[in-house]
Amino acid sequence: MPDRPRAAHLSDRRHALYGQAMPTIVDRIAHADTELRAFVDEPGRAERVAAEVDEIARRWPDPERRPPLHGVPLGVKDIFRVDGLPTRAGSELPAEEFAGPEAAAVTRLRDAGAVVAGKTVTTEFAYFAPGPTRNPHHPEHTPGGSSSGSAAAVAAGLVPLALGTQTVGSVIRPAAYCGCIGFKPTYGRVPCDGVIPNAPTFDTVGLFAAHLPLVTAATAALVHGRVDVPADRPVLGVPAGPYLDQAETRARDGFATQVAALRAAGYEVRDVAALDDIAQVNRQHMVVNLVELARTHEPWFDRYAERYRPQTAAGIREGRSTDAATYTTALDGVHTFRRTMPQLMADAGIDVWICPSATGPARRGLDTTGSPAMSVPWTQAGLPALSLPAGTVAREPGGPALPVGLQCVGRPGADERLLAWAPGIAEALNDPTSGAFVG
Amino acid sequence: MPDRPRAAHLSDRRHALYGQAMPTIVDRIAHADTELRAFVDEPGRAERVAAEVDEIARRWPDPERRPPLHGVPLGVKDIFRVDGLPTRAGSELPAEEFAGPEAAAVTRLRDAGAVVAGKTVTTEFAYFAPGPTRNPHHPEHTPGGSSSGSAAAVAAGLVPLALGTQTVGSVIRPAAYCGCIGFKPTYGRVPCDGVIPNAPTFDTVGLFAAHLPLVTAATAALVHGRVDVPADRPVLGVPAGPYLDQAETRARDGFATQVAALRAAGYEVRDVAALDDIAQVNRQHMVVNLVELARTHEPWFDRYAERYRPQTAAGIREGRSTDAATYTTALDGVHTFRRTMPQLMADAGIDVWICPSATGPARRGLDTTGSPAMSVPWTQAGLPALSLPAGTVAREPGGPALPVGLQCVGRPGADERLLAWAPGIAEALNDPTSGAFVG
Repeated sequence: MPDRPRAAHLSDRRHALYGQAMPTIVDRIAHADTELRAFVDEPGRAERVAAEVDEIARRWPDPERRPPLHGVPLGVKDIFRVDGLPTRAGSELPAEEFAGPEAAAVTRLRDAGAVVAGKTVTTEFAYFAPGPTRNPHHPEHTPGGSSSGSAAAVAAGLVPLALGTQTVGSVIRPAAYCGCIGFKPTYGRVPCDGVIPNAPTFDTVGLFAAHLPLVTAATAALVHGRVDVPADRPVLGVPAGPYLDQAETRARDGFATQVAALRAAGYEVRDVAALDDIAQVNRQHMVVNLVELARTHEPWFDRYAERYRPQTAAGIREGRSTDAATYTTALDGVHTFRRTMPQLMADAGIDVWICPSATGPARRGLDTTGSPAMSVPWTQAGLPALSLPAGTVAREPGGPALPVGLQCVGRPGADERLLAWAPGIAEALNDPTSGAFVG
Repeated sequence: MPDRPRAAHLSDRRHALYGQAMPTIVDRIAHADTELRAFVDEPGRAERVAAEVDEIARRWPDPERRPPLHGVPLGVKDIFRVDGLPTRAGSELPAEEFAGPEAAAVTRLRDAGAVVAGKTVTTEFAYFAPGPTRNPHHPEHTPGGSSSGSAAAVAAGLVPLALGTQTVGSVIRPAAYCGCIGFKPTYGRVPCDGVIPNAPTFDTVGLFAAHLPLVTAATAALVHGRVDVPADRPVLGVPAGPYLDQAETRARDGFATQVAALRAAGYEVRDVAALDDIAQVNRQHMVVNLVELARTHEPWFDRYAERYRPQTAAGIREGRSTDAATYTTALDGVHTFRRTMPQLMADAGIDVWICPSATGPARRGLDTTGSPAMSVPWTQAGLPALSLPAGTVAREPGGPALPVGLQCVGRPGADERLLAWAPGIAEALNDPTSGAFVG
């Protein structure tokens, strides 16, 4: 196995696991985050958090009847509305444009006892223009995006839990780059109200967490259900072919090592010829994303065009100039793909796809958040996807070791099974940060 | 409370509950269904079912380790592919056009032990042109549609469980008309592969069942999860205003009685001003439905136009002649509506919408399947919806008493909570067929 990832310039993540007193979290954000920049600046954070902690104590006075996330510090990507905090969505537009009631996902986690530690940095409107966040494993490398701050905050141990969203690869990729667990549930399972949309056909609320039991507890709160199902060992499938070829050699080498570890642990791993049409899948994803991004920004773009960053403005203009027939054809392709993917899994007799979470480890430089290519088909099909830390690799000889993730993709709606299988897979990967041993 | 519904010309539904030997089910279909026409004719049904029962016995030999739906007879709407049976989708097109692998929903229920009793009648392509099925409470009245046969078969006691789909109101309405339980999960929770599409933006796999524990068990199998969550008593909301005004006076009177019964049982029921834009919601639903229906039929319509029934052909032509910009504007409205509905529920402090399942009891005549209007906003928002039998009303003085349903609509993804709350609501309705007492 590759070396284990290490939060080199930030201390042991366990310190931040729940149970820790909230003022310490605030202190840590105040100090450690000056370099990391995972959180959006918040004057008065200490007082607000203290008041939230008091509210928790008032709301659940009986120690015997505490909710499942009691006192868990929560980072919230700044495209979710949170009562008492402004929403900026990583943009220069006035916060008033985004005012409104709190997002249901936030309320559900608060109702389960979580305490909002703060807003985390997002790329502008959850698209590709990066924020100031750094990778906790090496400050000159990108944390990935668009949920940059949530991934970095969890990986660095500032908070054990954070909310993100994924429209292309915005949960799975930063989780892998930063070396924490990321989970994107099945499309539609968690409501998106109170979240500034990117492309509604794909937008999905997801999570970052320091360990797997917390993913399970938070998901149960988000879906108002139970997630602890019994499940036999899954049959794993590798989507061999042009999709996998999109990953860099070093990512494929690391992935081969992970596959070998899973086979050594007794998992059946099947090579499945799949996604021969990945070029079309990628193209139709981009068309639908850009057209819907343009529509999302219809109320704002003409008034504030000069405040948009060039990447976002270019995306919106591209979406605007796409004719409706191109969009409807692409959307038709998305619907067909979403319908056929479960059949492909059934035909191949596999329960979970495994593949690299990203095309490689995080790139040097903060001007890009890296490629979401390894997430496109799974987001498009609406499937639940989990990124487990899977060791580190160096981008070049002598360069810093940076985390990589193993992406595990379940059947639609079978989020519970995927989470039930995750500890076994994580254990087989034998990475102490992959979830089986942390916390 | 109104009179309890009664399957007048068919005997006690309890006879068909699971545990009953399968040949008896086959006999019942062979005899009772000559009038009801819930099932698609199947030469050799007895032999095929006997073989399936043998297979069940072989697959689960240990009585201690039987799966949750062991031996439950299942009706399958004839737009789902089932291995070993042709798919006709209620149409005159060649069955070979619809051949392919079995639908995941069917496989999941079979893997949980269900035995396919047969294909049930659907309107043509799950649109509005009716099949031959009659209402089990009165043979001259429609069973509703499009899942006509599944609803009638369960309500008449021929099978305790059946699969359907809903694109507008195709589960909730026939369940109400026929007097059984119908459940449409959150959009996207159950995969649609192997199901002939109608409009993928809305298509959702759903269930009909003879009693609530069976809904819970079957849903758990369909979503590969656990559905038995603890849940406090919900706050109920009535969507007062133009949406509710679409129901006929007699349906609103019956609904008022149900609301009174719920209040008498101690439920908090809030009147919430909602859906002022119902006309727009209805319009955009129709636009998206017809355009996607036309696209779905692109491979077939030009070759087989003369085999389509007039209603379906008119819908497809209307969809084809709708320009792409109209579609994309409507779809944009759908996405916005889907995002704002959970917020409306949160703002109003309600957990469950309650409303009539249909605009009234089933109409006389088999030339129409009735109006799906009461389902449009919930299907469009992707919310989980459950129809509980709620007594009977007569359409005219001296006319036959026909069932009505209470529609209960949960928050997105909160299917588990909705099902946990259902027995309490059913008990308050005090209808012996509403699920609390049957089975």
